[in-house]
Parts: sequence; C-alpha cells; structure tokens
Amino acid sequence: SVNPDLASERQTASFCVEKLTALLDGGAEQTRMRRAVVEAIQSDPVFSRENQYFQSQNERYEAAVRKAVHLQKKMHEMGWTENGPEYKYIYRALSGDVAFLLHRVFMRSISVLGSDKQIAKWIPLATQLRLIGSYAQTELGHGTYLQGLETTAVFDIATQEFILNTPKISAMKWWPGDMGRSATHTVVFAQLYIHGKCYGIHPFIVQIRSLQDHSLCPGITAGDIGPKMNFEAIDNGYLLLKNVRIPRENMLSKFCEVRPDGTYVRQGSQKINYFTMTTVRISLISDEVLIPLMKACTIAIRYSVVRRQSKLKPGEQEAKILDYQTQQEKLLPQLAAAYAFHFTNDYLQELFGRGYREIQRKNFDMLPELHALSSGFKAVITHHCTAAVEICLRACGGHGYSLLSGLPSLYTKILASCIYEGENTILLLQTARFLMKCFMAASAGQPVPPSVTYLAAVKPGKCPAKNKSDFLSPDIYTEAYQHVAVRLISSTAAKLQDLIQSGAKKYDTWNQCTVQLVQAAKAHCHYIAVKNFAETVEKLETKAGIQRIMKHLCDLFALHGIFSNTGAFLHDGYISAAQMDMVTASYLDLLAVIRKDAIPLVDAFDFTDESLNSALGSYDGQVYQRLYEWAQKSPTNKMSPAYERYLKPLLHNTLSKL
Amino acid sequence: SVNPDLASERQTASFCVEKLTALLDGGAEQTRMRRAVVEAIQSDPVFSRENQYFQSQNERYEAAVRKAVHLQKKMHEMGWTENGPEYKYIYRALSGDVAFLLHRVFMRSISVLGSDKQIAKWIPLATQLRLIGSYAQTELGHGTYLQGLETTAVFDIATQEFILNTPKISAMKWWPGDMGRSATHTVVFAQLYIHGKCYGIHPFIVQIRSLQDHSLCPGITAGDIGPKMNFEAIDNGYLLLKNVRIPRENMLSKFCEVRPDGTYVRQGSQKINYFTMTTVRISLISDEVLIPLMKACTIAIRYSVVRRQSKLKPGEQEAKILDYQTQQEKLLPQLAAAYAFHFTNDYLQELFGRGYREIQRKNFDMLPELHALSSGFKAVITHHCTAAVEICLRACGGHGYSLLSGLPSLYTKILASCIYEGENTILLLQTARFLMKCFMAASAGQPVPPSVTYLAAVKPGKCPAKNKSDFLSPDIYTEAYQHVAVRLISSTAAKLQDLIQSGAKKYDTWNQCTVQLVQAAKAHCHYIAVKNFAETVEKLETKAGIQRIMKHLCDLFALHGIFSNTGAFLHDGYISAAQMDMVTASYLDLLAVIRKDAIPLVDAFDFTDESLNSALGSYDGQVYQRLYEWAQKSPTNKMSPAYERYLKPLLHNTLSKL
Repeated sequence: SVNPDLASERQTASFCVEKLTALLDGGAEQTRMRRAVVEAIQSDPVFSRENQYFQSQNERYEAAVRKAVHLQKKMHEMGWTENGPEYKYIYRALSGDVAFLLHRVFMRSISVLGSDKQIAKWIPLATQLRLIGSYAQTELGHGTYLQGLETTAVFDIATQEFILNTPKISAMKWWPGDMGRSATHTVVFAQLYIHGKCYGIHPFIVQIRSLQDHSLCPGITAGDIGPKMNFEAIDNGYLLLKNVRIPRENMLSKFCEVRPDGTYVRQGSQKINYFTMTTVRISLISDEVLIPLMKACTIAIRYSVVRRQSKLKPGEQEAKILDYQTQQEKLLPQLAAAYAFHFTNDYLQELFGRGYREIQRKNFDMLPELHALSSGFKAVITHHCTAAVEICLRACGGHGYSLLSGLPSLYTKILASCIYEGENTILLLQTARFLMKCFMAASAGQPVPPSVTYLAAVKPGKCPAKNKSDFLSPDIYTEAYQHVAVRLISSTAAKLQDLIQSGAKKYDTWNQCTVQLVQAAKAHCHYIAVKNFAETVEKLETKAGIQRIMKHLCDLFALHGIFSNTGAFLHDGYISAAQMDMVTASYLDLLAVIRKDAIPLVDAFDFTDESLNSALGSYDGQVYQRLYEWAQKSPTNKMSPAYERYLKPLLHNTLSKL
Repeated sequence: SVNPDLASERQTASFCVEKLTALLDGGAEQTRMRRAVVEAIQSDPVFSRENQYFQSQNERYEAAVRKAVHLQKKMHEMGWTENGPEYKYIYRALSGDVAFLLHRVFMRSISVLGSDKQIAKWIPLATQLRLIGSYAQTELGHGTYLQGLETTAVFDIATQEFILNTPKISAMKWWPGDMGRSATHTVVFAQLYIHGKCYGIHPFIVQIRSLQDHSLCPGITAGDIGPKMNFEAIDNGYLLLKNVRIPRENMLSKFCEVRPDGTYVRQGSQKINYFTMTTVRISLISDEVLIPLMKACTIAIRYSVVRRQSKLKPGEQEAKILDYQTQQEKLLPQLAAAYAFHFTNDYLQELFGRGYREIQRKNFDMLPELHALSSGFKAVITHHCTAAVEICLRACGGHGYSLLSGLPSLYTKILASCIYEGENTILLLQTARFLMKCFMAASAGQPVPPSVTYLAAVKPGKCPAKNKSDFLSPDIYTEAYQHVAVRLISSTAAKLQDLIQSGAKKYDTWNQCTVQLVQAAKAHCHYIAVKNFAETVEKLETKAGIQRIMKHLCDLFALHGIFSNTGAFLHDGYISAAQMDMVTASYLDLLAVIRKDAIPLVDAFDFTDESLNSALGSYDGQVYQRLYEWAQKSPTNKMSPAYERYLKPLLHNTLSKL
C-alpha cells in the first residue's frame, strides 16, 4: 500500500507521466525495451543488490565477478548482443555493479589501436572471457599529462622483444580497474625506446598472470590498491614491471609499428582515434552522471513528501517538508538540472553522431569544437550533478546520511566522475583555450565553429525585462546568459593580451589568467545548456501538457543559475538591481509552481525500487518500515566479541537490577 | 628523509612556525601539554588507528569499545581527570575514534536534569563504567521539532510507575549512539501523561539491557541502525518500548517532578539548562569541524608541493601543482577559512564564558544573542568547512579519492556536522528570526545586543576604494560586509512587512521569505567572522612576523568571500564593477603571496602523522612510497574465492601462454 502522503501527490499531476517517460527514453518503443531488460536483469537473483550496503569490499568484488560471468550466459540466453539495441540498458539495470568493465576497454583498445592480425588473435579470446584484460595508463605519479608517463618499453633487436620496466615507484601503474585481482592481460602504455631514442607513448599487450593458476608472471608485481570512497566492486590495481619481455607483435600497431630491424613506421591518421577518446567523456554523462542525479532526486523528493516536520500553520498537523520554501529551493533546482542536462546530453549525442559521420568522410573540421564541448560539458555536468546529489543527500537530514538511503553511495560514486576521464579544471582550461582562439578569430572577422558564432555577433545593451514575468521569457534569459559568456570570454582575452603586451612570458600569462579562464569556459557551457533547453521546449509544441511543465523547469534552471550567480549578470549592469529583484521573485514563484508536480516529475524517471535500492525512495513511500526492516539485517546486529571481552567484566559486578 | 620538494618549502618560511602553533594553542604551555597528551595516547598501541581504513563496521566498533575501556585505565595511570586541563586534548588525540561518547551525554543529562538524589545514585556507577548509558531523543519520524516526539510515558498511580511506549513505528528511537549494542541504560525523552493529560516532553532513565548477560529487558526491542557514511565505530541504535515500566524515581526531576499522588510540580528556572544546550553547538566547532578542516588542508597542501604535473615553463621539469593558480585558488582560501574560523571560535568561547558568568548571576539578558550566534555560526562554519574539506579532497585528484589519503573519512565525518545538533537551515532561520526582531527594535530606536548594534547605525554611501591595494584595508572590506548584511536584513524585513500589509497570513509570509532570511543570517555571520579576524590581526602587533602572514590570510578570507559572492556586493552599487575588478586583482595577487608560506602555515597546525593517518599528508612527504606500502596491507590483496569459483573454469581452457 502506498503511503497516502505520497499517493495524493500523484493524483494531481498536470501531465501524463507515461508520455514524459517515453520522451526521456526517446520513444515508447525504447521505454518498452528498457523495461524488458530491467525486468530480465532484476528478476534474476544473481544480479540482486539486496545486501550491498552490508558487504565488505571483498564480498562486493566477488559478487561483481559472479555477475559478470553470469551476464555472459544471460546475454546469450536472452539473445542480447554487445552491438544490439538492448545493450545500453543492461549496464544501467545493473547499476554498474559488475566486473570486467575495464576488460571492455581492453577490447576496445585492441579494436581501435590494433592491427587486423592482433584483432583476430585477441578479440575472440577476450569476448569469450578466456582471458581477462585491463588498461594500464595512469601511473602513481602521473595522470592527465601523458607525456610525463615513466614506464619504458625498450626494443631488443636481438630477441625481437620489448623489455618493459617501471623504473621508479612513481612509474608504477596505479588505478587500472580489473587489474588488482582479475586480469591476466593488460594494455600497458609506455615510452617506446629504439636504439636509445624515445618515440613517445605507445600501447603494449602484456600478460600479467598465469592462465593456469593465476600466479603473477615473472617480473610482475601486482595487486589491489585498497579501499576507495566507492567502487568496492572494482579491483583497481597496481602494477610494477621489472624487465618484462613481450614479443614484438604485442605492440598495438594499427598506427605505429616497429619493424624487425628496429625501423619505426607511422601509418594512417590517428585523428579518428583521438575522436574516440573524446567521445568517452560524452558517453559517461548518461549512465555515470545523469542517472545517479535522477535517482538522488527521486529519493530525496519522495522522502520530502512523506517526512513531516514542524507546523507550517498553527493547529494543523506537521507539514510535509517539501512544503517549506527552503526545501523546495534545495531540491527543485536539482530536478530542473537533471532535465536540463538530459537534453544537453541529447544535443551532444546528436552533435557527436554528426561529427562521426563527417570524420568518416575524412572531414576533420569539427574536431576542435567537439573536443572543446566534450571537455567543457564533461566538467560542468559532472561538477553540477555531484553538487546536486550532495544537496539531495543533505536535504534528507539524518536519514540521508544512512547508507540505507542509497544517497551516500550515489554521492561517493558520482564524485569520482569529477576526477576520472580528465580532471575537471584541466578540461575547462582546454575549453577555454578553444574559446580564446575562437574569440580572436571572430574579432578578426574569421569564421568560427557554430557553437561559438555568438562571439562574433556581440550586441551591447541592457536586459530589456520590465517586470518579473518578462524573466519567464526564454529570449530574455538566454540573451542574458549569452551576454555574460561574451563578457567573461572577452575580458579574459583582454587580460591575456594586456599581460603579454606588458612584456610577460606567455606561459606565465596563461597561468595568471586560469581562474578567470575557468569561469569563462563555465559560462559558455551554461549558456549553451540554457539555450538548448529553451529550444527543446519550443519543439515540444505537439505535447502541450509536457511542454508546459518542461517550460517551467527550463525557466527554473535558467533563473536558478542567475539567482546563484547574480554578480556575473550585475557586473556591467546588463541586469540592474531592480531587474535582479524581479529574477528573485520569479524564481521563488516558480518553486511553488513546480512543487505541485514534483512527484510526477520524478516518477517519470521510471526507476524500479530495485534500481534505487533506497529505504527512503521506494515507489510506495513506506520509509520508516523499510528503514527498520533493513537495519535489522545489518551484520552489526550480531553479537560482538566486544561484550565478552570488554563490557562483561565491567558490568557483571553491578547490581542485577537497579 | 623528507622529500626535497617539501623540504625546500620549509626553508623560506616568513615567520616562526613554533610561535604560530603557540598562538593557535593559546600559549606555549598549552602546546607543551597538548603534545604530552598526544604522545601518551599515540605511543600506546591500543589506541593505534593503523589499519582503520581496512576495517569493517564490526571491527571498528570492537576497537572503539576496547579503546574506551582502556582509556579509563590510561587516565587513571596518567593522572588525567575529566575536569583537568588535559582532557580536551584526549578526544582530539584519539580522533574521536572511541566508544561511550553518548555515555558521557547520559551522565551530563543526569547531572543537569537530575535531582541530587538521582545524581548520587547514577553518576558514580556511570563514572566507573559499571553501567553504560545513552541518550534517546531523536525518533525515526522526528528530529528537530521536539514537540512532535511520539514516545509516551504514562504515570500509573497504582504502582507508582511510568509506563513507556513507542506507539507507532515513527515513534521508535533512532540514532542514539552507544545504544545499538553497548548501552544498558538510556535517558528516554517522552510525552508525560498523568490522568490522561499531556504535560509535554520529559526525560526518563530506562534500563534496556540486563547487567547479567546483556540480553534485552522485557518490553525492549533494540539494535543497531546499520551502516552510515562514517562513524563506523559508533553503534547508533534503535529502540522500541512496549509497556516498559520504570519506577517514579526514574523521571529526572531537577526541574519537574511527579508526586506520588500524581501532582505535577515545576521548580526552578530551566534557563541555565537551555543555555547548556546552546553551548553544545559551539563546543563541537573545534574538534568536529576545525580540526578536520585543518587536517584536510595539511594533507592537500603537502601533497600539492610533492605532486608534479605538466610543465609550467617549457624545458623545465613538471611543476608542483601548487604553483598553478587554479590549485592555489582551490586550497589557499580553505586554509584562510581554517584560520578565520579558529579565531571566530575563540571569540565565541570568550562570549559564552561571559554569558555563563552572567547567567550564574541570574542575568539572562544575553541568552537571545547567544542562541542566535551559536545557531548561526554552527550552521555557517559547519557548512563552509564541509565544502572546504570536499575541495581539498577533489584537489588531490585520484589519490584524494583513495581512503588511504585520509580525506574521504574527513569529508564523510564533517558532513554529519551539518545535520546533527540542529539541521543547518533550521538553525539559520533561528538566527534570522533574532535578526528580524533586532532590526525592528533598532529601527524603532530601541537598544539591541552588542553583535547587532551595527543595524542601528546604517550609513548610506559607496565603497571608497580607489585602487586594488585599498582592498587590503580591513576597514574597507569590513564595511563592505557590514553593508551587505544590513542590506539583506533590511530588505528581507521590508518584504515580510509588505506581505503582511498586503493581507497575507503571518506563517505564510515567513515561509515565503525563508530563502532570503537564510541569506541574511549567513551575511550577518560572515560579517562578524571577517570583523573578528581583522580585529584579531590588529591585536597581534607584538608579533610582527605572525601579524604579517595573518593579515594576508585575513585579507584572503575577506576577498575570497567577495569574489565568490560578487552579486551581494554589486547589487545596490556599493561596490562598482571597476572596484570589483580591483577586488579580483587583489585576490589573485594574494594567492601568489600566501602560496610561499603555504607549508609553514599547515605545519603550524602541528598534526602528527598518526593523527593525520594519511598516505598523502605525512610530514616527510613520501607520498608514493606510503601509498604503495599501505595498499599492500589491504585485505583485498588476499586470494579471493572468486578465482576458484568463477575465473578458473573460464581461464584454464585458454592456451597456457599466449
């Protein structure tokens, strides 16, 4: 039975939840397929996450391996393939709690970087899990800056082998998933040396564990790097190489080859390969960032209509906490952001699809723009969504702090997305570098890529809004965001210019502007996100009910961004103080409007109770019952040796009953 | 041997580290005493935290009980007492990793709320740990709003007993520390009923477990609430009461008593008791909030001079990451905040000491101000420091994400401080209510408490700064903060007034203004923190070297606050756009200045390696070596059954060596 406080929220939905779900999925047929996959996975007890919050890192790892091996059978049984339409829903249905994710990266590396012969040898074995691969790039002392990697691969002509070494402790490979305990092989990135000359970083297939008994191969030291904030299921590993010899054929050689005589040959263009790396940043947004935020919103918002606290009106019962303006102001902007970035992701997917087709036609013109957008949006979306999940967690008070709420795990997992696949600050500076170039080009009247043409069409002037309802006009707020982006980009470009003209060294200049460059890159991405949301809403004209609520969310997303960052808009007077008061009024009004549809808006994300795995967020809202039931299963409710050892000697001298 | 990249940072300190440490401790004698306590605790193997990051919740609990029992002996052996000067350093030296903290709250409750007879009966037993107490206030469905508690205590004249019940699942006691597994007794807060009439919430001593065999007493259901984000060592518990009978003498009766005939008698003033509760919010700031932030700063800043990444200048070696402006902008404002709030804490301690003396003289005039300050600063400092620790964690990239860095535990622990002892938003609204009253009073020419007299002396006008160095004048920025606080308080008061005059209900009005009321309360606290830091620096005139660096930190704290919140200062033009550019320039300049003393500034916090318990933050900076050594000890480096069960069957068919 559904908690009546939650049930009543569903009766007054202003739109059809099922239609919104289909919109999010990309069509009713996708919804049907997603549900079928989720049902097949979640009804299989091997994939259960029931006791996850009680398990040790060792237990989580073992379960993840079991699931990975079982998944292979399951896919065969269900007729799912890695290239099939269902595939993208499988990982989501498992909530990422499965081993051999890096094994898949191992396979992709070979497919992309390997010769046809290498692909023919390794891929079938890997597909059948007859070996387990990993991907060893990051080192203990080296991350983003690949040129700094210290692992070496020296070509020995005499034996036709590469000799691999991690010459210092900082050169040790560190972090690769599946490597700590599972992998038999890995792709090692190392500085290639031939005849004493360094040719830079190249990929090599290295066997690290015996296929007979899983013991470490000669010259290999490897293990697990130990506990992390999350990813207990993953055996992130370390790897030391001491004079490890591999055959010449193990260097992945689609683009570069070392001939038997030691001649180094480069072949073909790696540009499509760089493009592939860029797309990884986009591909993680959906499953690793948006889904966790949508789950966190579902949990926190459902809890906020079930939890009652204090009285809003004298004489009435305690109020639902979602009826407090402060609670709305915490949660509803996060809900709006989840929708906003869902549509940003659609935009990026579409753009990258187009980019891929262009690149296959050997047109590489879009690459710089795609690189800038993928870097910037990876940073902005992961940062924004991580902060949003944290807000959801805190908004649930003490119960949010219990692992049983599901929120701590969502937070500790999404947090990692700010670090992996490019640390966010470094990525934003990549975007900023692109923006500086484009701004210079636009100023000089040269053509620039589509996403930055607005830099060429700078209009001076002020925001024309006259009353608070004007700020519900997408034109008004989109223009404001554009204005701020232009101002921050142009003023930072001017500062760079000034410093250089005053005689500073170029590298010093750049470093002295990086705080502002980061701000400029964020403003650019924020503008595009707002503009894209507004355009998406406009296209929903055939879906009136949905268009109305999406319009409210779009307005909220935009006004929340202004309200939280007023200085950027006030700085040059584009928005006046009186107008900013209108923004605030409109923003606060919107909270009360969207609050009415808050539950239908999270219901539309369509998470099953199994996938939320939260005592606070289930569809029926039976929060207290579930917290109590789950707590009783905790291993901390078994007798502790602490009683016999430490407490009994103290207590048994006390009077038997006071 | 100290990593040379770290060692070189210590050679150029602009001040004497030992003198700054003494200043932070409150004198060289305090430093000596603190070090002696730390040494005694950390040299005792029972108190070791060595394998903490590898332990399960059960293991952590057992270790915490062992430490608590051992601590009793240790204190006796060392001649330390609970009222002695060393006591405050003991908990800090243990990093809070010890059981029976709620047992101490149990004792304090009896001391404060119990009659002399009750104190004489219970306190000696509790002191000797011949019973273990807890404190059961919060319920599954009820937190901050005490009137909403549902547990009942019905007086039965016939038997002279109270009958206690938790009538619904939401009435179950939930969260009390030491209750899940250890406690034999607890203080239960329940609605008192006599002859069917409710007299509100009262405290009752209830035995929950047998002193013979630790089994639950009749009518009691209790256990552990399971895993949380942190506090693994603490057995937070749940408690159901079903017709549990306790003697009339077990109601704590210093202020209220039930006579044998059922007469209810109130006696004495509870005001000093309310004051005690208020001081708890202040008392947590030092150990639970500032120390974790100082540890996080120490870890992140030491790591940032050891870690090298990318090249700043072509041809040179990779640069220390602390030499990047973006890294400085992440970490140095957090360091400044740690110092700022350390001095805020000194200010609050002094004020509360004065308040205590006044109250003992039956002068309760200071109570509203103390309540407002303790609420507001608890919220502002916990929020700010939690965000700061998260920034430190992220600034260390992947290694910050490893539990071995120590940063995840610091973060997950400090996060709880935003929730316990009053949820932050609710506390800020308490402060705001006080500010609204004071503003009205000041506007009407009535006297107001010292911390808000500035509301009466509102000066119109603009910021007089003419160049960027003017923003290094404490008068200039303190005035700016004051101006913003006054503006936000007065504009919110005006909005409240307007809404009431337009006919809205008072409770609706309040709710519609809460987002802005929270902003006003924060601005008030921020102003006081800046003002207090500036005044503290001024008083350091006899300590020139320390005064200089503290002045820089004070400037940074103040300018960072403006830079991160420009809109508040730009809104009414108090600071112009041109002046805001000066703020930015001064702020960025300061980063480079303070960066030079960054290591001495964290060294002055004087943490031992044992208390940091971090592979990244040790005094010698041997980061990579320590990460590797620690990882090898992880239980994830033992053979997993996953190999035999799932991997071997797959792998042993593959060719023995590819």
